[in-house]
Amino acid sequence: MATLVAPEDFSPGEDALAINRACQGWGTDEKAIISILGHRNAAQRKQIRLAYQEIYLEDLTKQLKSELSGDLERAICHWILDPVERDAVLANEALKKARPDYRVILETAYMKSPEELLAVKRAYQFLYKRSLEEDVASHTTGDMRRLLIAVVSVYRYEGEEIDEGVAHSEANILGDEMQGGALKGEEIIRILSTRSKAQLIATFNNYKQIHGTSITKSLRGDPTEEFSAALRAAIRCIRNPKKYLQKLLCNVINNMGTDEDTLSRVIITRAEKDLKEMKELYLERNSRSLEDAVSSETTGDYKAFLLTLLGNQEF
Amino acid sequence: MATLVAPEDFSPGEDALAINRACQGWGTDEKAIISILGHRNAAQRKQIRLAYQEIYLEDLTKQLKSELSGDLERAICHWILDPVERDAVLANEALKKARPDYRVILETAYMKSPEELLAVKRAYQFLYKRSLEEDVASHTTGDMRRLLIAVVSVYRYEGEEIDEGVAHSEANILGDEMQGGALKGEEIIRILSTRSKAQLIATFNNYKQIHGTSITKSLRGDPTEEFSAALRAAIRCIRNPKKYLQKLLCNVINNMGTDEDTLSRVIITRAEKDLKEMKELYLERNSRSLEDAVSSETTGDYKAFLLTLLGNQEF
Repeated sequence: MATLVAPEDFSPGEDALAINRACQGWGTDEKAIISILGHRNAAQRKQIRLAYQEIYLEDLTKQLKSELSGDLERAICHWILDPVERDAVLANEALKKARPDYRVILETAYMKSPEELLAVKRAYQFLYKRSLEEDVASHTTGDMRRLLIAVVSVYRYEGEEIDEGVAHSEANILGDEMQGGALKGEEIIRILSTRSKAQLIATFNNYKQIHGTSITKSLRGDPTEEFSAALRAAIRCIRNPKKYLQKLLCNVINNMGTDEDTLSRVIITRAEKDLKEMKELYLERNSRSLEDAVSSETTGDYKAFLLTLLGNQEF
Repeated sequence: MATLVAPEDFSPGEDALAINRACQGWGTDEKAIISILGHRNAAQRKQIRLAYQEIYLEDLTKQLKSELSGDLERAICHWILDPVERDAVLANEALKKARPDYRVILETAYMKSPEELLAVKRAYQFLYKRSLEEDVASHTTGDMRRLLIAVVSVYRYEGEEIDEGVAHSEANILGDEMQGGALKGEEIIRILSTRSKAQLIATFNNYKQIHGTSITKSLRGDPTEEFSAALRAAIRCIRNPKKYLQKLLCNVINNMGTDEDTLSRVIITRAEKDLKEMKELYLERNSRSLEDAVSSETTGDYKAFLLTLLGNQEF
């Protein structure tokens, strides 16, 4: 369930006026902006963008970029995008980093249905006049490139039918490939990228039965560090996306120096979907609430915005 | 332009009755079946299938399979399918051969728009409860597998924008990769699978300027025979699909022992599209008409059917 609290009645025109008012004069009234946009769902935000364009002949994103700064600016500008367009923008930004963030690409590939992934790829082409696939190829190298191109390219089968024989034989293939140190990854990439999620879960279960340990644990000792971390992330995304995201939040919060991009991304992309379950899971695992954790790791208006999306009604 | 000659007025019910009549008694009246189905377009054939099902409570394909045999059976059963479904069936049959026919997969990937390819992949999943990508992976190995999975997976950018800098640098990358005998193919696969067709054509042009020879000629001397033949086929499909198909027809007709599957495939899949231009091209290059060539290579009802699709009104 969503954590976002949005009123049923709202007026896009009044919201546009209030946002514009918050941008007038010296300084910006960030709190006013948060109290509006932090309580509007995707359809409502779209109407506000349209109203703003109509009244002020200006793009709301541009306006907010010039008024806000830092993590709050990035978070709010991502938040007001259409979800599909936002996924395309997030993927593009992840690729353009000095060290591309493979997790964003894996999440794009695995947390969406084949049709949703396709919608993101269409939006990507519309925005950047190139395919997501070729940008993944341009910004990555080696095994990581092979993995990421393959998982974003495929139009995966979504049915529930599984072939137990294939699950068994591919669990063996995976076991063989992971033996002996340097993971080449040819078969694991092929299997993770082409098989349906239902089939993959059957294969992971077979793996555990045959080898007595989970496939993610088998991958832990691998020397080609980042690549095997990416494989583990992919497998976790497939097995249990909510648990994967909850763990990602934990890592972000517990690591030295919070990774605000990731923190914002998870909260923004899930606030209208399943952030409530993720909060419950977080509390269960960490004996403190996600709000407490976010509060202690962030400050100021950025903190207020994230807490608003987490369902806090104070702001 | 199409070669198919189909009447504007027709009655699906009468056609269904006539086909059923041709199937009655001892033997089958192949000529009657050809004279009907060989003169109906895709929409009309669909209506006939529906009418047949309604009147006789039987699937027309099943009925024809039991009445016809050999090359004619295969050709007519392919012909009466919806074009998108037919492409899925052709891809599946090509993969199931003892030596999978990579050309069919390359044609599926390169002769269609991204949306058309997607439609074929959807039809494939509907028919076989698996993705085309995973079946390509199951039936091929090595470099060929890497190439074929990549080209059928990608959702290619279709715009006309090109980046001359990328075209130049990738022409160099391709040149470097093809130096020195054993072609590994990592970069050529990445470029052929992810780049848009417009971008690829710019890259091939740059290749010729830099290296003084076309990329297909550079690939000719490569020792890993089938893989480099597949790369050449892919490049030809991108550069000029009609010329590629015309050449394919030449090879099929001139080689010892006609490859009826390929002959049927080209004629059936293009009869409603551009077979007329291909006939003209064929005549230009071979100083005899495609009809003459087909006549001398085939016999009986199968010959009559192919000639009918080629626009011959005798049958």
